[in-house]
Amino acid sequence: MKNDYKIILASNSPRRKELLSQIGFEFEVWPSNCEEVISQTEPSKVCTELSRLKALDVASGIRTYNENHPGLAQDRDLIVIGSDTIVALNDEILGKPKDDEDAKKMLKKLSGREHSVYTGVTFVFMSSDGRVGEHSFYEKTDVFVYDIDDDEIKEYVDSGEPLDKAGAYGIQGSFGKYIKKIEGDYYNVVGLPVSRLYHELKNIIE
Amino acid sequence: MKNDYKIILASNSPRRKELLSQIGFEFEVWPSNCEEVISQTEPSKVCTELSRLKALDVASGIRTYNENHPGLAQDRDLIVIGSDTIVALNDEILGKPKDDEDAKKMLKKLSGREHSVYTGVTFVFMSSDGRVGEHSFYEKTDVFVYDIDDDEIKEYVDSGEPLDKAGAYGIQGSFGKYIKKIEGDYYNVVGLPVSRLYHELKNIIE
Repeated sequence: MKNDYKIILASNSPRRKELLSQIGFEFEVWPSNCEEVISQTEPSKVCTELSRLKALDVASGIRTYNENHPGLAQDRDLIVIGSDTIVALNDEILGKPKDDEDAKKMLKKLSGREHSVYTGVTFVFMSSDGRVGEHSFYEKTDVFVYDIDDDEIKEYVDSGEPLDKAGAYGIQGSFGKYIKKIEGDYYNVVGLPVSRLYHELKNIIE
Repeated sequence: MKNDYKIILASNSPRRKELLSQIGFEFEVWPSNCEEVISQTEPSKVCTELSRLKALDVASGIRTYNENHPGLAQDRDLIVIGSDTIVALNDEILGKPKDDEDAKKMLKKLSGREHSVYTGVTFVFMSSDGRVGEHSFYEKTDVFVYDIDDDEIKEYVDSGEPLDKAGAYGIQGSFGKYIKKIEGDYYNVVGLPVSRLYHELKNIIE
């Protein structure tokens, strides 16, 4: 992929940074701090809207920075990448657990069942001559979880892994032993659908 | 999972060691050096037979060691885990590529198509009072690959990643950007179906 753009990742998630690096992207990190206010309830629309809010928030921060630092003005075209991952069990959206008890409840719900992980991604393009554009998409992966007994749930929650993760689990950690199978992109469950992202960007840039 | 067994992994693969550690197993490594002679041609049977050969080879080495070192005799029950991963495109089995040219040919075959990854696993149980038992299974994951153009194939082969990998790719590296989706266990494609392995072992031990 020819790429003269400077890529800005609008996320401080160590997993997203690792995934973008894994596929060979060079990028800078400018985390978004926007409030996650949404008007949608459908999982695919919620994650897409949140990814857009994050990308636009960072793009707006960059514009303000450019206006205040004319000497350091943007000399290359930029792409800001915003993304948001949510876990949905039927129509219920599971966010990050509030505490250990909440994590246990979520894991009990996921045990022995199928759920879906959605990641929304928004690109905001900012050319050096001031033009702006945007493009959003989402990717869905179905995840099938083995039965998890109370001892196993307690052990996993005690490990501290659930607390910063939507749905109270990370597929890439010790929870991998409870994932029977998936249908879709594995990295989408980790937090960024890198193959879809790469191809969407390739189609736009080339 | 209650586990008073000592686990021996009959593989020197860094990926398999990492996966077993990821799900919290403690184990020792005793790589098999057996010749990979097989009588089967069906992918599921090939990988299962090879996993069995590897586990039995290491079990036999342990037995010889025990006989030669009576003072250090085995005081705990052992489980030797052998495994073998193969990539199958229709009925053709793709092994590790011989060289860069071979890797390019394999990747061209995989481009834009679906293939299957099979990992066979065999447990050999050796109790401290001399009883021996074994149990084998395999896991299959279907992998859907995006179209990969010649420049992308060259870039990937030049990275050196393909050479030690069946099918000339590793899903966990930069090749992740070409994996459209999978159906099955992701870790099975990396080299060890850890969730199936955990549950097979749990059913036997508990």
